[in-house]
Amino acid sequence: MDTKHADFIREAIRMARNNVESGQGGPFGALVVKNGQVIGRGVNRVTGNNDPSAHAEVEAIRDACKNIGHYWLKDAVIYASCEPCPMCLGAIYWARIKTIYFAADNKDAARAGFDDSFIYREFALPREDRSVRSVQFKDSERNQPFDHWIRMENKARY
Amino acid sequence: MDTKHADFIREAIRMARNNVESGQGGPFGALVVKNGQVIGRGVNRVTGNNDPSAHAEVEAIRDACKNIGHYWLKDAVIYASCEPCPMCLGAIYWARIKTIYFAADNKDAARAGFDDSFIYREFALPREDRSVRSVQFKDSERNQPFDHWIRMENKARY
Repeated sequence: MDTKHADFIREAIRMARNNVESGQGGPFGALVVKNGQVIGRGVNRVTGNNDPSAHAEVEAIRDACKNIGHYWLKDAVIYASCEPCPMCLGAIYWARIKTIYFAADNKDAARAGFDDSFIYREFALPREDRSVRSVQFKDSERNQPFDHWIRMENKARY
Repeated sequence: MDTKHADFIREAIRMARNNVESGQGGPFGALVVKNGQVIGRGVNRVTGNNDPSAHAEVEAIRDACKNIGHYWLKDAVIYASCEPCPMCLGAIYWARIKTIYFAADNKDAARAGFDDSFIYREFALPREDRSVRSVQFKDSERNQPFDHWIRMENKARY
């Protein structure tokens, strides 16, 4: 890996370490980088912000999108102190980020009590076999929002 | 399904429909309910807020957590106008929500151009076979944030 990659990874790790010391959240940090420039930063703020979605990667994506004024981060990459969980990986896909560089992996995280392998296993199951119960109500109006969307002109697609 | 369930589902659908009409985002709405009371609401704000993570379910979870002042939503359920995507399902797991009631399913969504089955399939693949490239850099400091976390006393676990 070249020096620049090493610097960004080391910076994400430093942010993760400082975040523990500040008491604002868990030991995770992430950077979004485009054309060699940092365009977004995030650390875990789950407990500090009372937001279970405030993982470092999601926070870094939100910050980058705010900074560039768009909801896609095409041609950007993300550096994370640890391998992303399923929620963060989903956010990375929706943001159109194409490459993830990470330092610690999910085995390292599990040793510190952060085990998301359970959620990865759940996702691979059919909906009826997951521990979170999913119940469909086929309300007769369920397709109305989609019908409105399809008919709408000049909509912002994403 | 009893009347209350039907009312909450219908309300999530109404929010989704109104959100299209307001031009702030996609055709999705969600409610977090605890003890029969709505404690959080969300609609899709991806384009309106320039936030790819601002799906209805994530927004509803964030709103509920803000309202109750905690990052867990134990004993709460979520009503969604459509079946959750992988990112939202991840957020539901992290929020400790145990039941999801939804109206439209992913086939209905796909007909309107919202197809997340690709992401579900990607999640089931080993990291090296996914279309988003994942590269681990085993930086010698990669476990420092976790070591700090393990040593820290009085930390807020989540």
